[in-house]
Amino acid sequence: MAENVRTVIVDAMGGDHGPSVCVSGAVQAITERDEALNIILVGDEAQIRAEIHKHHLNGHGANIEVVHAAEVVHMHDPATDGMRKKDSSISVATRLHKEGRGDAVVSTGHTGAFMAAGLANLGRLPGVSRPAIACLFPSEQGKTLVLDVGANPVCKPQNLVEFGIMGSVYAHEVMGVESPRVGLLSNGEEPSKGTELTINSHRIFQLCKLNFIGNIEGRDILRGRADVVVCDGFVGNIMLKFAESLQGFLTNAVRRQISSNKFSHLGAILMGPFLRRMKKTFDYAEYGGAPLLGLDGVCTVCHGSSSPKAIRNAIWAAKQGVDHHINEQIAAALSQGTPSLSEE
Amino acid sequence: MAENVRTVIVDAMGGDHGPSVCVSGAVQAITERDEALNIILVGDEAQIRAEIHKHHLNGHGANIEVVHAAEVVHMHDPATDGMRKKDSSISVATRLHKEGRGDAVVSTGHTGAFMAAGLANLGRLPGVSRPAIACLFPSEQGKTLVLDVGANPVCKPQNLVEFGIMGSVYAHEVMGVESPRVGLLSNGEEPSKGTELTINSHRIFQLCKLNFIGNIEGRDILRGRADVVVCDGFVGNIMLKFAESLQGFLTNAVRRQISSNKFSHLGAILMGPFLRRMKKTFDYAEYGGAPLLGLDGVCTVCHGSSSPKAIRNAIWAAKQGVDHHINEQIAAALSQGTPSLSEE
Repeated sequence: MAENVRTVIVDAMGGDHGPSVCVSGAVQAITERDEALNIILVGDEAQIRAEIHKHHLNGHGANIEVVHAAEVVHMHDPATDGMRKKDSSISVATRLHKEGRGDAVVSTGHTGAFMAAGLANLGRLPGVSRPAIACLFPSEQGKTLVLDVGANPVCKPQNLVEFGIMGSVYAHEVMGVESPRVGLLSNGEEPSKGTELTINSHRIFQLCKLNFIGNIEGRDILRGRADVVVCDGFVGNIMLKFAESLQGFLTNAVRRQISSNKFSHLGAILMGPFLRRMKKTFDYAEYGGAPLLGLDGVCTVCHGSSSPKAIRNAIWAAKQGVDHHINEQIAAALSQGTPSLSEE
Repeated sequence: MAENVRTVIVDAMGGDHGPSVCVSGAVQAITERDEALNIILVGDEAQIRAEIHKHHLNGHGANIEVVHAAEVVHMHDPATDGMRKKDSSISVATRLHKEGRGDAVVSTGHTGAFMAAGLANLGRLPGVSRPAIACLFPSEQGKTLVLDVGANPVCKPQNLVEFGIMGSVYAHEVMGVESPRVGLLSNGEEPSKGTELTINSHRIFQLCKLNFIGNIEGRDILRGRADVVVCDGFVGNIMLKFAESLQGFLTNAVRRQISSNKFSHLGAILMGPFLRRMKKTFDYAEYGGAPLLGLDGVCTVCHGSSSPKAIRNAIWAAKQGVDHHINEQIAAALSQGTPSLSEE
């Protein structure tokens, strides 16, 4: 079925490790599964080709294309460089997507620059006032999608409600959740708890055709009470960075314990698989990257320190989003507009 | 030095386990150290006396007094019951403090009810617009005081600046930090990052006589970049509850690992001390409770599930706050008022 062959554009320059990891991830994505998948690698052509030559492509050489981009937006650059540096790999990648050369973009680069390039080159989906960065947190039930985690520090109720709708579509189509439970993050379960933003958002959510389970609290994320957790990008970003810092905190705590007691040392070796899993548990990149929802394109950002496997997973997740027509579904869900309080 | 004998009033009814844990903690506090300390236990007199009789007081019987209170504010009651139920143990305890019968109040009960009773019976310190709940988070450097963690979901810049000043005094006097580093929690280090609240608060903080280190991010809490982390009670409450849920999440993850692999089982046994320590690491009660700062009284709340040791620590920390004249110091620090942006 030729119409199901997808092309994922990979910004090969963004991560902490240069093109080597991105190329490895891309090669894994096309060789490890019998997916109908092409990859366009964007960035310094000579470097990328040198990396490709290190791999056995198992007959998939025709599935990889390279498009040169002369510049890179580095992690310390301002987010607006994603828009201003027209020859940067992220700008070229999003333009290729807009031109229809590919169906999705995956980058390990600067999240803000990716969002800026996406807004400039792809624009927003119809009905979306603000795109959001969605991120998978671990939970006792599996995974919880939290959005926004940083694109919009200041939000209106309409934004949060759109986040809930977009997150619900993503959880259904990509995470495979039948009827995603959408929770509004607040400081108490009662609808009256929180700020003006959460109180008004709660009222609008109740008017939406969503499986809205009401306010949830900070403790409910890891417990997995909701599949989709909605918050503004200020709270979400603080939560995400706090959670990301846990792996370092736990690792250092284990090291201190090991150096204090020889039995603990043996214990730590035997517990190694667990400790490694815990380390990964709080690294969202392991789960297939963080989708930028609400752009008129399928865009996924991975952590700058992603492994090839994480990039491979993100490419597969992006392809799944395309296969499931994620953006058409989001646009359809938003096509009647979101309810407003005056309609009550 | 008779003038240094302090009396700590303990609400013996509030916790999840009734008076037995509170009485044990109180007995530990007066018998385990040669502190010049008296305790008033408030609550159901018969129950409390029955608990006291279970302990060896080692000649300290005269240091314990019981004051009867007929009612209890339970965890599921509204916070306003702290004010309305005049015969509740928390209301009686705060009134005794106001009357000068004791120098501090420690409760394992309903935090909101404690704050309500404190506001009604003790009032605010001069210069304090909003009292805050401060809470100790673990960090790689020791401990980090975060405030507000729930009393004020909606704040003005003046409130946050007062939180910073109060937290700085507490960190200096009770935690023994020479020049506490005060950080403002935001979604980026740049002063321009965040919301109108954080941007304006940042500008006022720069005018204050504090060791203000600027904005800090979610990842900086566990890393210990600041001694005092200032945020509104909405963000702080979500962070606190997220952090509290970690111990359960880690414990369950260990259980799953144990049941999957016999070597891990042995590892978990050998790593037991570490895992128990991690469990405690995220239980703020272990550190001496959470002070309610800004009330005209020394008030400390402990987790409802506190151990006797945690209550003992909270009693000692409260005594230290009294010994160091924490409230006089806060009032002095706030006596010139906080700077405002118009003074720039």
